[in-house]
Amino acid sequence: MYSFKNDYSEGAHPRILNALVESNFNQEEGYGEDYYSKKAIELLKQKLERVDVDIHFLSGGTQTNLTALSAFLRPHHAAISASTGHINTHETGAIEATGHKILTVESSDGKLTTAQLQKVLDIHTDEHMVIPKLVYISNSTEIGSIYKKDELEQLRVFCDDHGLILFMDGARLGSALCSDESDLKLRDLPKLVDAFYIGGTKNGALLGEALVICRDSLKEDFRFHMKQRGAILAKGRVLSIQFLELFKDNLYFELAAHANKMANILRDGFTRANFQFLTHAPSNQVFPILPNSLIAELEKKFSFLIWEQVDANLSAIRLVTSWATKEEAVSAFIEELEKLLQK
Amino acid sequence: MYSFKNDYSEGAHPRILNALVESNFNQEEGYGEDYYSKKAIELLKQKLERVDVDIHFLSGGTQTNLTALSAFLRPHHAAISASTGHINTHETGAIEATGHKILTVESSDGKLTTAQLQKVLDIHTDEHMVIPKLVYISNSTEIGSIYKKDELEQLRVFCDDHGLILFMDGARLGSALCSDESDLKLRDLPKLVDAFYIGGTKNGALLGEALVICRDSLKEDFRFHMKQRGAILAKGRVLSIQFLELFKDNLYFELAAHANKMANILRDGFTRANFQFLTHAPSNQVFPILPNSLIAELEKKFSFLIWEQVDANLSAIRLVTSWATKEEAVSAFIEELEKLLQK
Amino acid sequence: MYSFKNDYSEGAHPRILNALVESNFNQEEGYGEDYYSKKAIELLKQKLERVDVDIHFLSGGTQTNLTALSAFLRPHHAAISASTGHINTHETGAIEATGHKILTVESSDGKLTTAQLQKVLDIHTDEHMVIPKLVYISNSTEIGSIYKKDELEQLRVFCDDHGLILFMDGARLGSALCSDESDLKLRDLPKLVDAFYIGGTKNGALLGEALVICRDSLKEDFRFHMKQRGAILAKGRVLSIQFLELFKDNLYFELAAHANKMANILRDGFTRANFQFLTHAPSNQVFPILPNSLIAELEKKFSFLIWEQVDANLSAIRLVTSWATKEEAVSAFIEELEKLLQK
Amino acid sequence: MYSFKNDYSEGAHPRILNALVESNFNQEEGYGEDYYSKKAIELLKQKLERVDVDIHFLSGGTQTNLTALSAFLRPHHAAISASTGHINTHETGAIEATGHKILTVESSDGKLTTAQLQKVLDIHTDEHMVIPKLVYISNSTEIGSIYKKDELEQLRVFCDDHGLILFMDGARLGSALCSDESDLKLRDLPKLVDAFYIGGTKNGALLGEALVICRDSLKEDFRFHMKQRGAILAKGRVLSIQFLELFKDNLYFELAAHANKMANILRDGFTRANFQFLTHAPSNQVFPILPNSLIAELEKKFSFLIWEQVDANLSAIRLVTSWATKEEAVSAFIEELEKLLQK
Repeated sequence: MYSFKNDYSEGAHPRILNALVESNFNQEEGYGEDYYSKKAIELLKQKLERVDVDIHFLSGGTQTNLTALSAFLRPHHAAISASTGHINTHETGAIEATGHKILTVESSDGKLTTAQLQKVLDIHTDEHMVIPKLVYISNSTEIGSIYKKDELEQLRVFCDDHGLILFMDGARLGSALCSDESDLKLRDLPKLVDAFYIGGTKNGALLGEALVICRDSLKEDFRFHMKQRGAILAKGRVLSIQFLELFKDNLYFELAAHANKMANILRDGFTRANFQFLTHAPSNQVFPILPNSLIAELEKKFSFLIWEQVDANLSAIRLVTSWATKEEAVSAFIEELEKLLQK
Repeated sequence: MYSFKNDYSEGAHPRILNALVESNFNQEEGYGEDYYSKKAIELLKQKLERVDVDIHFLSGGTQTNLTALSAFLRPHHAAISASTGHINTHETGAIEATGHKILTVESSDGKLTTAQLQKVLDIHTDEHMVIPKLVYISNSTEIGSIYKKDELEQLRVFCDDHGLILFMDGARLGSALCSDESDLKLRDLPKLVDAFYIGGTKNGALLGEALVICRDSLKEDFRFHMKQRGAILAKGRVLSIQFLELFKDNLYFELAAHANKMANILRDGFTRANFQFLTHAPSNQVFPILPNSLIAELEKKFSFLIWEQVDANLSAIRLVTSWATKEEAVSAFIEELEKLLQK
Repeated sequence: MYSFKNDYSEGAHPRILNALVESNFNQEEGYGEDYYSKKAIELLKQKLERVDVDIHFLSGGTQTNLTALSAFLRPHHAAISASTGHINTHETGAIEATGHKILTVESSDGKLTTAQLQKVLDIHTDEHMVIPKLVYISNSTEIGSIYKKDELEQLRVFCDDHGLILFMDGARLGSALCSDESDLKLRDLPKLVDAFYIGGTKNGALLGEALVICRDSLKEDFRFHMKQRGAILAKGRVLSIQFLELFKDNLYFELAAHANKMANILRDGFTRANFQFLTHAPSNQVFPILPNSLIAELEKKFSFLIWEQVDANLSAIRLVTSWATKEEAVSAFIEELEKLLQK
Repeated sequence: MYSFKNDYSEGAHPRILNALVESNFNQEEGYGEDYYSKKAIELLKQKLERVDVDIHFLSGGTQTNLTALSAFLRPHHAAISASTGHINTHETGAIEATGHKILTVESSDGKLTTAQLQKVLDIHTDEHMVIPKLVYISNSTEIGSIYKKDELEQLRVFCDDHGLILFMDGARLGSALCSDESDLKLRDLPKLVDAFYIGGTKNGALLGEALVICRDSLKEDFRFHMKQRGAILAKGRVLSIQFLELFKDNLYFELAAHANKMANILRDGFTRANFQFLTHAPSNQVFPILPNSLIAELEKKFSFLIWEQVDANLSAIRLVTSWATKEEAVSAFIEELEKLLQK
């Protein structure tokens, strides 16, 4: 049964596996001090058009979030997140386990605005409360929405005005940047956020996220924090070789564009059939609202998540596409949908 | 220049890369709930001759140590370790970062004895001190020594008598079990220790350690702890496919035996040349004590660590062999040594 | 200017100071192992009609909450609290600093119901989320409401059914128990909650809270946790002598009853003047909603907190009474109010 | 039976109790923002001859140590301490519970030297190890020794040269400063250390330590850290009133001088009887080495700690004197000693 459950159902893009095979017997230094890591960092700096950022490769999103946030914050500092933010909902209290409170903001589209941030600041006035210090955003968000450039610029100004760190979770950054609606480029990010990561796991790598630290004051001793959290691999090459391959040409963006294209086909299919969506998600996740009976039929041939009950008869489902999604599977899904609707 | 610096200088055994390639496009569940993880767990249970252990795959040694120890201990519990123990020396305070003190014992051979443990217990008498609760041992140790079966049996009895958890760091377990001097089998371990891990990273895998939890009371909710520490990979298959390949026949042990054989050749060469060793290390690490002038010459052709200054003229070096060490490199090293000595 | 800002504006009840003076030169063991501590524990057990509870004296509310919760919970466990709960709003992330997430529930009256708890449990289904393990309630709550016996009985049954720990913050327990509307007795509490504390600081002591641990499984090694959090005073007698004095007759309850009586007078005054209240608070806090202009006039003669803006013209203020509140001050306040209203 | 077990066996100096009684009904702000706290801070600044230090009152030594160190250090930073240091031996892992490793140095006199510190720095070279960042010293030390001014000056220079924070635990600072052998004044300390505390609990207060933060970079947001660790008392006056009384004239120093004088009498008695001492301790602790048979006799009339077994027949005992020690008790002890020796 074909799965649209997530964007990490398959292994890695074949070129990545090939790169691992080809480099396999070269002897290298351990712990990310190898040739490939240096080269991958250099390459990413070129792509970012910035030589003054620090780049580190970590294994996964939760690890990157907890290592970065605990390194950036002092004990009495808190992170602000949309209530749907991954650190708040699906990381088993990883941030709190490093000692930090997450202050949540209800947000219908998974994004944060300066007005919402201002409200949080307004009620944190003295030493009986934590100091909100870091703004955690995801792009694309957990519900598929994306940030436009001017939205980030507003957050940037607000954070500068209020001494806040702006951190972007980029587990699905590729899909966000390659969205039809995006006006944001990878090279824009170092100017807009203080740190962010370029997600590899959900865009063609076996595993791996590239954390980019843009603000000088956050760079110090970061490898100590990584080691302390168990986030330095002995064979650091395993991560860097993959990022080298993803960025030595435009593979990273091609894979994300493919995922988005597959999502667009699904979205168009639902739209043609006059279904509505839970959220405006112009990336690689699609959240159509469907009758429960229809969902039950679709589940016989495809696997996907039932995201949320909307009312007694309707539920939103989540379909996720990826670099590996086959166009024929997408077509089959829409055909099945249309066939079921004609009954 | 050929490197004897460590056992993680190369990628992975080709069969492992091949297994990743072959399984690459199969769609699987995420987070270690995939087919391969289930199968690898089943296979390891067979090898351990135990169905009642819990097995989890993690990325590296520090991550495994900190996740396990913080899951097993309550806030006022401490771990006892040899002062040379990896958690004490080379994990950047990872255990303390989860809130736990490490009580260290000076040990000339890197191993712990019941007499040493008793001394630690004797001085921890009341609530002004932590409670020593977990005994951390490494096999092979950080300085290449190994535990014999009766040594572990004595530790087991002592731990049972005193309510202690016995935890074995198995980053180099393969080499320990395949040592010429070992009388220990993999299947013995669940009877002897409460939890241990089977190191993959240093024995042929790209990355990955298989944690085996033997004591029932330590098993509960372990995946929650893993997730909280960032230790569940989205593509859990990346780890389990490698362990499947390592254990579907005897590859794991063949690779370790090769590493040990290469170390033996080096050791024999130093012995023939009448050099002494810092420590009795019948595994894949060799610590000969050499004149500094000789070391300087050897460094021109090979890379290795200078481990410790012994006196004004002598230092111990560390040579590490692995599954990937080439016999011709080992021969070349010994030839070079003998040539230099004839001068 | 007379202050109704809080219930810790003065020192201690004179009998308490006297008890400290009288016992001053008796030599005693340190760290809570003194004669007075043993005696006070014995006395409290009598009052609770239970010999099988453990009792510990700590310095203040935040310290008690953080020590208890971190001792009771494992790393992946979370506490459920009303969003108004003290641990969530006014303890500077103290619980998170020990590694635990607080799951908040919006509650208009500051209390928790089983229906609210069920909703929290419903959405915490797997290892990507924390496990809700402890229910934190305050009695009286931060906004002056109190729990009736049947409300606690319902929570008790729910917690038993779902393996939850029920913890009551009793910083203002005296006022709650002595409320005109309370049907709860001190001796009921060990049957209803797993642990709670009897607040001294806000009811006549210089400092001090008596933590009562009722559930056996939570008792183990608690003094280790206290010491680790800096919560064992060298001169433990300072706390126990005060509790001895508070409970050797009914002083504790007399003081609370006085505070409530003073609050009732204030409440009656506002009711007579047809003002409404932010919340139903039958304890020692009064939250009348007043015109801003009136508030400004009252502030010229009395100090109190402006709690919350209700609309453009109205705000709720908070008046707190205590064991030390003088009836003439209360009368003067109401007189001033009535005088201002006649203008 | 008269106790020489410790310096916290009695309550507080009567003048302190009196000050609490006299101020008792004055209404004050909570949480250390009261009149007395402001006044006590001002007074201490005068005594320290420094207006630019920050002063905070906390309840006890462990609380002060853990709050200060966790505020001053980032996650990968460690504290260096003599192995006898209180934070290492008798605080139940309180520092580790905030996430920080303690690096210990064997020291026969309980003090640290720059040579010892250099050795610790020498072996902490990269991100696989913690960064030694704070030097923890006690004055007087846990075994009664004291720092001379030039010893502190050397530590100061070393810490400046190596970017280290110098922190002095002053639980027994009074006794150290008033030692016959001391050339150190209270006002010298802000120039010599980055932070220290003036112990009240062991020098005449019911409870309370005054933490003095001298280095600007350590001052920021300290009250947030205090609140988060449960170290801000609602009735902050309880601490500040005591320090006001201790320092409004020379009471603090008079009490310490008395304690030292009582210790000197004991020390002289042992010296006259030709006993040796475990350590050179010119403060309020005396560690004579006595035959076990003699100790057994003395224990019939006095209580004290048996500190350490020296050989089969001899043990060191610890006698502690304080502000409350009666000269007649000291004389009685020496008389008893001499009587027993004449038998």
